[in-house]
Amino acid sequence: MSSLPSPLTICDLHTAYAAGVPVADVLQEIFARIKAVNDPGIFLHLASLAELDMHIQALGAYDPERPLWGVPFVVKDNIDVADMPTTAACPDWAYTPAKDAFAIARLRAAGAIPIGKTNLDQFATGLVGIRTPWPVPRNALDAEIVPGGSSSGSAVAVGHGIVPFSLGTDTAGSGRVPAALNGIVGLKPTLGMVSATGVVPACRTLDTISVFARSVTDAHAVLQAMAGYDPADAYARDIPATPLRPAPPHVKVGIPDPATREFFGDALQAAAFDANLGALRNRGAQIVELDFTPFYDVANMLYDGAWVAERHTVIETLLAQKPDAVHPVTRAIIGKAEGLSATDAFRGIYRLAELRRICAPLIASVDLLAVPSIPTFYTLADLDVDPITPNTNLGTYTNFVNLLDLCALTVPMSPRADGRPGSLTLIAPAGHDARLAAEALALSGQAVAAPDAASGDEIALAVCGAHMSGLPLNHQLASLGGRFVRTTETAPCYSFHALAGGPPDRPGLVREAKGGARIALEIWALPKRALGHLMCQIPAPLGLGSIVLCDGSQVTGFLCEAAGTDGARDITALGGWRAYLSQGVAAQ
Amino acid sequence: MSSLPSPLTICDLHTAYAAGVPVADVLQEIFARIKAVNDPGIFLHLASLAELDMHIQALGAYDPERPLWGVPFVVKDNIDVADMPTTAACPDWAYTPAKDAFAIARLRAAGAIPIGKTNLDQFATGLVGIRTPWPVPRNALDAEIVPGGSSSGSAVAVGHGIVPFSLGTDTAGSGRVPAALNGIVGLKPTLGMVSATGVVPACRTLDTISVFARSVTDAHAVLQAMAGYDPADAYARDIPATPLRPAPPHVKVGIPDPATREFFGDALQAAAFDANLGALRNRGAQIVELDFTPFYDVANMLYDGAWVAERHTVIETLLAQKPDAVHPVTRAIIGKAEGLSATDAFRGIYRLAELRRICAPLIASVDLLAVPSIPTFYTLADLDVDPITPNTNLGTYTNFVNLLDLCALTVPMSPRADGRPGSLTLIAPAGHDARLAAEALALSGQAVAAPDAASGDEIALAVCGAHMSGLPLNHQLASLGGRFVRTTETAPCYSFHALAGGPPDRPGLVREAKGGARIALEIWALPKRALGHLMCQIPAPLGLGSIVLCDGSQVTGFLCEAAGTDGARDITALGGWRAYLSQGVAAQ
Repeated sequence: MSSLPSPLTICDLHTAYAAGVPVADVLQEIFARIKAVNDPGIFLHLASLAELDMHIQALGAYDPERPLWGVPFVVKDNIDVADMPTTAACPDWAYTPAKDAFAIARLRAAGAIPIGKTNLDQFATGLVGIRTPWPVPRNALDAEIVPGGSSSGSAVAVGHGIVPFSLGTDTAGSGRVPAALNGIVGLKPTLGMVSATGVVPACRTLDTISVFARSVTDAHAVLQAMAGYDPADAYARDIPATPLRPAPPHVKVGIPDPATREFFGDALQAAAFDANLGALRNRGAQIVELDFTPFYDVANMLYDGAWVAERHTVIETLLAQKPDAVHPVTRAIIGKAEGLSATDAFRGIYRLAELRRICAPLIASVDLLAVPSIPTFYTLADLDVDPITPNTNLGTYTNFVNLLDLCALTVPMSPRADGRPGSLTLIAPAGHDARLAAEALALSGQAVAAPDAASGDEIALAVCGAHMSGLPLNHQLASLGGRFVRTTETAPCYSFHALAGGPPDRPGLVREAKGGARIALEIWALPKRALGHLMCQIPAPLGLGSIVLCDGSQVTGFLCEAAGTDGARDITALGGWRAYLSQGVAAQ
Repeated sequence: MSSLPSPLTICDLHTAYAAGVPVADVLQEIFARIKAVNDPGIFLHLASLAELDMHIQALGAYDPERPLWGVPFVVKDNIDVADMPTTAACPDWAYTPAKDAFAIARLRAAGAIPIGKTNLDQFATGLVGIRTPWPVPRNALDAEIVPGGSSSGSAVAVGHGIVPFSLGTDTAGSGRVPAALNGIVGLKPTLGMVSATGVVPACRTLDTISVFARSVTDAHAVLQAMAGYDPADAYARDIPATPLRPAPPHVKVGIPDPATREFFGDALQAAAFDANLGALRNRGAQIVELDFTPFYDVANMLYDGAWVAERHTVIETLLAQKPDAVHPVTRAIIGKAEGLSATDAFRGIYRLAELRRICAPLIASVDLLAVPSIPTFYTLADLDVDPITPNTNLGTYTNFVNLLDLCALTVPMSPRADGRPGSLTLIAPAGHDARLAAEALALSGQAVAAPDAASGDEIALAVCGAHMSGLPLNHQLASLGGRFVRTTETAPCYSFHALAGGPPDRPGLVREAKGGARIALEIWALPKRALGHLMCQIPAPLGLGSIVLCDGSQVTGFLCEAAGTDGARDITALGGWRAYLSQGVAAQ
């Protein structure tokens, strides 16, 4: 099995499975890698190959339609996987759930195989990855620097290329900081897009499951499989993960202006950020410098403000009954909540509302934000000296994101001059996750194939006449944000008519109960919100209805009232409008 | 000046001004009425006629285009009016603002004249109107029953017909309970629609300025003048007050089912509610009984949960430095916040999020809710015995509204058998304020003139089947922001067919080259941006095209492909879908 690439991607596995490699062989290779990495800090629980065999049997034969068929992954140990203990890195908290977390169940349904649970900063409180009663996972690239947290084990496992992806969680930056420290992709979805049912909360209003992967494409594929509305999660939102689309060629990217950039004296990190801005410019981005002060004001509220009380709701009983069960640093941080009143909490909520108002126009002034993922690197030795300050500093560019309801994507960039991993984090308003992924791919020079179908916020529209590309009314589609998808034909049950009137000349497509032919069409995708404007420009006897295509599928498209073909010329036999036009031109 | 009607409406004043009556004469009449009412509890401050003269001069000549030109009003004393003291009914709190509250400034710009400040339950905490260090305002209808609060003075002033409208505020029900107790209209707008800048907060996340008036039309006109986005208010939302439109002829109204109706043993109030349901049915409403338990669970959070800490943020310093400055009952209520931790606050916030999820499908299952405005009446003597419980009971049907982000309108109904005022409160999701007003007008038999056309960002849409009001697919239009415009008929050139398939049963409208008849339609106006979403829900053989109306005009509407009527029943002779449906029921 040494034939599997390292690091491993989902595409690598699909290739192997298509070639007939058994899942059991892949799992054996993965367990061999775990042994070779030899880090006792990564896993808090690992299934045995024998235990996993049952899940392999349940998968059935290889099915390329299931996006994660046979893809092994590992799970931060604050997310429930059925029959594996959940500890949140606190042995006294341990329980063994009978059910998968909602998101795990969705991944399993897509064919993925959870193989183990990974270490974390206890109760997901930390960005360093060392606040655990178990051995600290070693950073996958440099054992002297901290692995990052709180999703330490999940990031390190993907950093070593053990599995193609892993799950973390992200409240303050736990899905982004460890990605930057281990040179991998960290995807922090829009809040509520992925269910939190079966996740040990940190701050329930700010938590999300996150994804670590080797490529943006893989991370987004995992998000697409995992996202889904969960009515049992009061903070769930019905925001589907849309497919990857090509990024627009020109974007405005907001960055911290020089006065509000913070690298804590790390000149190499400052230079790396400048280099990353160069990469953005090369890809056609317009860089807009913003005063980041209000973003930092928001960030400071997460641990200095009332939100630490959210963490306290989770462990209040444990802290009262068995304080020694909690890591001393975690206890010191979350214990601060005991001095906070409900009055303080509402004052914090008001202040956040005010700061959101201040940040909103800054965010709206650009297409996305780009920030250094981390301001600098810290070693394990630094944390021995001061377990708090380096942790706080690591959150400089992450802590404000969930408080402002933004989504974020951390991507590896060229390494720094000293070889440490380069990283950039792209940030956008809630729901723009796919846009971030497309932008990250554009930044790395990877093209995204235009998908066949319209996405969730588009409507596919079949046009058979003057709206086709290059014809007189095509500008209506273009000006409404339409994009060409493909050419095709109707099912063989339509008549086609050159209507009286014009210019412009227009055809009429009429479904027939008997007879009819295949008529050439173009499929366009139009933003749904634009259809009303188009409708206002469609004169009788034309309208919009359902058109059956030659493959039997249906799509919205231009139809003609049967009564409207009085006095028209039947051109069904020509099979399409372009054929009619070329004949017409020839006749003149 | 005794020629002015009593009670007074905005329309009465426009009539008088158009006839040349000077504003000074109107103000003199109003001051004469104040003297005649002779209640020292209503006003905490009253401008002198001399002081008001300056404002009269600033008005200029009568301008019928200014909707509130020369309309005097009074203001609850927790809202700033420039150069009048603001006390929140706490003498130690008093200050004299140099600036109007944002909403007052907008009313002044529309021509209205604030003439005084009115008494309230101190810091707007209460529904009874007696928690004030000054004399308690007397209920305008029956001096034995409480005036209602917290907006006591403002409600009583309008109850006596002194001014056409007044401002209150509403957090728990302070804009609705006193309206019911004084037999007037109480309009509680969507949260954030009216700026809170210059208002002494009660619960900042739940407060809104409210309107008392003698008619729904007046109250809505005041809302339209007062609403406007205020960037300085972190909780402001950009939701304009839309003009009054006709209510659709058939609406689904959700009410508490018999098991969850609460009248605290008041059989007359129960009978009055039943009579009001009869009025709703007479007007064409379909009554849907709902289990109101989750609404009451929400209501109980307002004073028993963490939200009392919002009130505490306002007076924490005063309570600490000068506890005797606060009314003893108010002190006891708000003082409960001192025992609440930030952890408690977040637990309450989580619980509310969960309850919102439970209430959402109940709210979505109907067009609006209708509840008794108050469950029963309490006398001043009752409050002497127990100053808390009657107050809590009065909030039964109001406390949940702002926590669930709903808007509400309290309207007078026929008096009870014992002569006490009848009242009903209509409730709808945020942003549907105009719809509530239209429904209240329909309930009182008043017609609203239909605007002829859809506005610029709307598309007029003719529907002839299951999308008509009260029918199974009407919710698609409602949920997309559609509004009923009018009923009409097609030109006499259409055939009409009951299509095979369903449920829901659907008709097909087909234009005929020869023959055909007039078919009944409803015209709706839909936001253009929503048409794409509707289109995605339209199955073959239906589509959208141009329909010729009986007056010769054309409108976008539902058409059926001629080929799709194969196997359908021709119902052209019935002239419409409702006729077909009623026949279908008769045939069964």
